[in-house]
Amino acid sequence: MAAEIVNPRSDSEYRDGHTEQESGAEPLDSFDPAFALHRGGKMAVQATVPVRDKDDLSLAYTPGVAKVCSAIAEQPDLVHDYTWKSSVVAVVTDGTAVLGLGDIGPEASLPVMEGKAILFKQFGGVDAVPIALNCTDVDEIVETVVRLAPSFGGVNLEDISAPRCFEIEKRLQERLDIPVFHDDQHGTAVVTLAALRNAARLSGRPLGELRAVISGAGAAGVAIAKMLVEAGIGDVAVADRKGVVSRDREDLTPIKAELASFTNKAGLSGSLESALDGADVFIGVSGGTVPEAAVASMAEGAFVFAMANPDPEVHPEVAHKYAAVVATGRSDFPNQINNVLAFPGIFAGALQVRASRITEGMKLAAAEALAAVVGDDLAADYVIPSPFDERVAPAVTAAVAAAARAEGVARR
Amino acid sequence: MAAEIVNPRSDSEYRDGHTEQESGAEPLDSFDPAFALHRGGKMAVQATVPVRDKDDLSLAYTPGVAKVCSAIAEQPDLVHDYTWKSSVVAVVTDGTAVLGLGDIGPEASLPVMEGKAILFKQFGGVDAVPIALNCTDVDEIVETVVRLAPSFGGVNLEDISAPRCFEIEKRLQERLDIPVFHDDQHGTAVVTLAALRNAARLSGRPLGELRAVISGAGAAGVAIAKMLVEAGIGDVAVADRKGVVSRDREDLTPIKAELASFTNKAGLSGSLESALDGADVFIGVSGGTVPEAAVASMAEGAFVFAMANPDPEVHPEVAHKYAAVVATGRSDFPNQINNVLAFPGIFAGALQVRASRITEGMKLAAAEALAAVVGDDLAADYVIPSPFDERVAPAVTAAVAAAARAEGVARR
Repeated sequence: MAAEIVNPRSDSEYRDGHTEQESGAEPLDSFDPAFALHRGGKMAVQATVPVRDKDDLSLAYTPGVAKVCSAIAEQPDLVHDYTWKSSVVAVVTDGTAVLGLGDIGPEASLPVMEGKAILFKQFGGVDAVPIALNCTDVDEIVETVVRLAPSFGGVNLEDISAPRCFEIEKRLQERLDIPVFHDDQHGTAVVTLAALRNAARLSGRPLGELRAVISGAGAAGVAIAKMLVEAGIGDVAVADRKGVVSRDREDLTPIKAELASFTNKAGLSGSLESALDGADVFIGVSGGTVPEAAVASMAEGAFVFAMANPDPEVHPEVAHKYAAVVATGRSDFPNQINNVLAFPGIFAGALQVRASRITEGMKLAAAEALAAVVGDDLAADYVIPSPFDERVAPAVTAAVAAAARAEGVARR
Repeated sequence: MAAEIVNPRSDSEYRDGHTEQESGAEPLDSFDPAFALHRGGKMAVQATVPVRDKDDLSLAYTPGVAKVCSAIAEQPDLVHDYTWKSSVVAVVTDGTAVLGLGDIGPEASLPVMEGKAILFKQFGGVDAVPIALNCTDVDEIVETVVRLAPSFGGVNLEDISAPRCFEIEKRLQERLDIPVFHDDQHGTAVVTLAALRNAARLSGRPLGELRAVISGAGAAGVAIAKMLVEAGIGDVAVADRKGVVSRDREDLTPIKAELASFTNKAGLSGSLESALDGADVFIGVSGGTVPEAAVASMAEGAFVFAMANPDPEVHPEVAHKYAAVVATGRSDFPNQINNVLAFPGIFAGALQVRASRITEGMKLAAAEALAAVVGDDLAADYVIPSPFDERVAPAVTAAVAAAARAEGVARR
């Protein structure tokens, strides 16, 4: 895709934000390779059957298509065999929590949703279609997705702000018989658990002996906490802006109250920093900065997963002074916690067996399979595979499909 | 796509409908090439940019995508430049009027919607995504499509039963600033008008001297009547099951009352057959059969467009005994009235100039451009081009784009 010059202004002008005063001017530097690459979008639809002549048309369209429609009308399950339903996922957002940009609306979220869609295809062989909704009301989003669900084999919720994302996912999964998966929660949790499993294996310490502290009680923080408890972590405490989430706090949202009910066995209260004193694991999904002194106060051989982008809560150089294993969300440091390691294989496995949902067991199986790819190459700077390791998606796909069968949610 | 044998029963058993008693058995003959071709569906998504390595990922996804999102948030129009929005159409149905099969529901309609999508791509280079809704209430369909519209550059309504289709299209076009087009109405009308223009040219008679009778007052019949009047037909009468739609009838729905207000200048009443006496043009979009005597009673050198599939209202062999020009909806006779001649180019042209709607002028321009492709090869058995004539889509696209500019609905 060749760069088309829209407005040859310097990148510095763009960064200086002059554009807001320049109505009509395009607020971008078209020399920027990101804009050049995005011209015209990043995806397309293709026919997988020929439509070259009358005979092709009479099979793919009328009259041939009619008997396929009639067969599905008689036996609804056949829709999975004779349409693309079981290979296509809706990537649904309302544009309220896009990357670090926040509530930028549905249109502005589309480049991310298209990016997600092509990652589904590239890494999992899963077709995906961006569906950016211009409504933010929970009831409206749920109703809308339920109504369009017949066309899709799964729903990947993306960049929907907390706490609405929790209820939307829960209600959609209750209403639909196809997988509904909020990647910002579960994808992040799966990859984090995989990295933690390998860090624990490297240091010879079972998960049950580890105490973890999570900074951030949003979508990712809540999901990671749940998954670490499912996986048998010794204890996990979650801190939001007001400090550690504990039963004695009276300002908790329903979600955080639930969080308090199954986390923080130690009954910690107070600041994130105080909770880190003696902790074995730090997991940052909040942004902000953790003081070096707090990192220094962690237990010997600690694990620091500072996943905020672009600025980790603890800079890797600082973390390495005190921690045995350091991971970030960035591709320019070792041990990148990247959701693309999980969601393509998770959906590919679920679709392969026509799972009606993605269970905790399927997510745990995905984390185990992902961790296992590292194998004997395990090292402090290699607790999680590269997103471009071609062994990852097949391993996750197979593990998720097997777990779906074992848990009785598979339909083939 | 190799045929996979699901259940090798004979086609006759399938047609005999034994399957309804045979729960669990698959009601189809997997040797049938239509089923073999439909295995796994007929379409896929593809990335149009590389995602091979870390550098690709950092442009197509985070962090590079963030500045594209921010630019769109600042300048919403940029969504057309930097996403696939302006190349992708939602093919929306509720599955209530699918082919001749009727109300078979959203899942069973998907093979048709996928077929439509690949025709969009093959003939117009337009990306299209099937959106089959599991709701039939007009308000619910309108709200749902409005909510998902940010992701799409246009909406093609398909196989939605009358009269709901009229109100759904009208309300959606009022609510949205992208083209909304019910192909069963307007696509059929455009192709019919193109064929009629050429039949008139062949016989040296201006449209203004022709009296037409349309059998069928559903989506297609109403749209064809409107378009023929727009195009300056002498007179047109529309007949439903109860006979000619006329002002003096008291059983008319609002849509048919409107139809009566601008059709049937002659004030005909009574049966379709009686209306055909001396008529110049018959247009069948109803199914059913027209008695040979009624065809025989038409004016000298009449045109018979019997478009019902698979059984034309008048068999071509019968029609040829009395008519100068005969057209059908079938590919195995000359002069096939096929919507694929219109909708790909109409949307391609509208998207090319980012039209906010598809106007009457754009549809008339499409019909004229389609008719003009026939050129000097005009003959009684060649009043409309073949769907595989590669001149068609470019001609329609250019004419529609130009008309959009002329009518002031183009945004580029």
